[in-house]
Amino acid sequence: MSAYRIALDVMGGDFAPEATLLGAIEALKAWPELEITLVGPEDLLRQKCESKEWTVDLKARTTIVHAPSVVEFHDHPTIILKEKKDSSIRVAAQLVREGACDGMVSLGHTGAAMVASTLVIGKLEGVDRPGLASPMPNIKSTPTILIEVGASIDSRPEHLACFGLMGSIYAEQVFGVMNPTVAVMSVGEEESKGTEVTLKAAELLRNSGLNFKGNAEGRDLWNGKFDVIVCDGYVGNALLKSAEGTAKLLKNGIKEALSSNWLARLGSLLIMKPLRTFFKKLDYKEFGGLPLLGIKGVSIIGHGSSDARAVKNAIRAAMTNLEHELPRRIAEGIVKMGSA
Amino acid sequence: MSAYRIALDVMGGDFAPEATLLGAIEALKAWPELEITLVGPEDLLRQKCESKEWTVDLKARTTIVHAPSVVEFHDHPTIILKEKKDSSIRVAAQLVREGACDGMVSLGHTGAAMVASTLVIGKLEGVDRPGLASPMPNIKSTPTILIEVGASIDSRPEHLACFGLMGSIYAEQVFGVMNPTVAVMSVGEEESKGTEVTLKAAELLRNSGLNFKGNAEGRDLWNGKFDVIVCDGYVGNALLKSAEGTAKLLKNGIKEALSSNWLARLGSLLIMKPLRTFFKKLDYKEFGGLPLLGIKGVSIIGHGSSDARAVKNAIRAAMTNLEHELPRRIAEGIVKMGSA
Repeated sequence: MSAYRIALDVMGGDFAPEATLLGAIEALKAWPELEITLVGPEDLLRQKCESKEWTVDLKARTTIVHAPSVVEFHDHPTIILKEKKDSSIRVAAQLVREGACDGMVSLGHTGAAMVASTLVIGKLEGVDRPGLASPMPNIKSTPTILIEVGASIDSRPEHLACFGLMGSIYAEQVFGVMNPTVAVMSVGEEESKGTEVTLKAAELLRNSGLNFKGNAEGRDLWNGKFDVIVCDGYVGNALLKSAEGTAKLLKNGIKEALSSNWLARLGSLLIMKPLRTFFKKLDYKEFGGLPLLGIKGVSIIGHGSSDARAVKNAIRAAMTNLEHELPRRIAEGIVKMGSA
Repeated sequence: MSAYRIALDVMGGDFAPEATLLGAIEALKAWPELEITLVGPEDLLRQKCESKEWTVDLKARTTIVHAPSVVEFHDHPTIILKEKKDSSIRVAAQLVREGACDGMVSLGHTGAAMVASTLVIGKLEGVDRPGLASPMPNIKSTPTILIEVGASIDSRPEHLACFGLMGSIYAEQVFGVMNPTVAVMSVGEEESKGTEVTLKAAELLRNSGLNFKGNAEGRDLWNGKFDVIVCDGYVGNALLKSAEGTAKLLKNGIKEALSSNWLARLGSLLIMKPLRTFFKKLDYKEFGGLPLLGIKGVSIIGHGSSDARAVKNAIRAAMTNLEHELPRRIAEGIVKMGSA
């Protein structure tokens, strides 16, 4: 592959279009092999690209594709199928479907992005439900992949097994983990513990050819015990949002504690740098966005509150997934597991 | 009620019997209205109570009840029903059932404690499934009650509605929250979002007479938005254990950051006190143990790794629940909700 051609939904996210455009500039500067298609209202984008940050080199690797409408926060995800066919999310997905781009990055309406990815780009053969995978930071050098975190709910056991396969390929290819360990989120370590669905999923995973290790517990999201943990999107979504909430509470609480008196304020100056390094490790903006696995292309779904750095990192995530040809490898994995 | 008579499973927990006995001593010293029944091997307990910490006053408020066997980590929870009828967990529950004690505290085998509480003490009329309630610390002065966190799994909608009622009474009585707000854990704020079970539970809660506010998301566990959040025990257990894991990861990471160089070490000395105050607020040992709501008595289930302070606080939790007559109030609430 000579270049990575990424469609960027410029209008997505709380700080669009400023943050998305700035993220695009930074990504283009950082990676010469990147080509970006900006998707959004043409007039606006042309005007923005007149500014001096868009050098000749960057412009040469930038295409503008017109998409007049925007999916709003309160819109139903399926709005892109009928009323808002010309929305930036839908048009970006269309570009991937038609092969004009290799992958898409969106940071706005998560539900609409999942509908666009699943129904416009389309599911891989053998994948009933695509899965949103979230790398969770821990003490090890490689994250634990939590899959699935909100693309679907009320999963059946076979969906969880498929999440295990896709998460395993993702961990192996993108994070370089050899023969990743896979576990299913349950209420206890013992094999007998679990819900009806997790018990059946464990049975499927045990016979899947994956490196299945049994049950995980909530704490295993953070201790690096497993490389991949599968669960239903409802559970994963609650876990992910809860973790964001915990981190925020702790960060604010620590900040407050550090400014509680002058001694503490002095102390906080001295510890600022190492503390910042640590919190950076836990910052979701470092990953930029989460890949929706199981579709015929690459789709990275970012946080609505993404800033330029998060947008840049989401673009990097799309490039990495393309570099490792995740869709092809997952398709092969499905065939292999089916015949196991 | 003149005195609070608490049965303590002395043999439960990783640091038993030392931590449990020390916790009992500290609790007896702190609260003159407390009477403790130590449940465990009689010879051992008699010998331990000969030490000088057990003053005449403390001994006067201490009873020893013989229970020769101990439920081990690897035992199945239902072992107390047949093989280990004479275990300390089972005997403690028996004392509550017979009215010799008002409440029990156990810190060992969570599953066995739940079986003993549910089947030996017995469920309240109208309660199909008792619920383990966990107060989650946040920025407000009162915690958010997460119910249920592991007493049962695969809940039906009517179970979740009952958890909402019990959690609401707990928040009101024990934490002094007027007309507590109740929400159901889901994947988004919108009323249309949720699993089959949470959507039906929301419908029941909307017509329950409780102060129901709709859907909660994972982050709402930490921002104080709701007083009570209901979910299935599988989800709540994963959320609770994940939060413990996050807190541990952050604490260790911060500790490491604070000792990374001599400037940071100096700084950390200056911030030690306010930081410790903050972490104390988040420490589960402050709550001591979680109440199992919906049974005909008070049962506090503590963490296996409880130290003496956690044991003391678990005993306090039992006393508080008795002071507010939680079982009677929940029984009344069930009747009232049933006729609503």
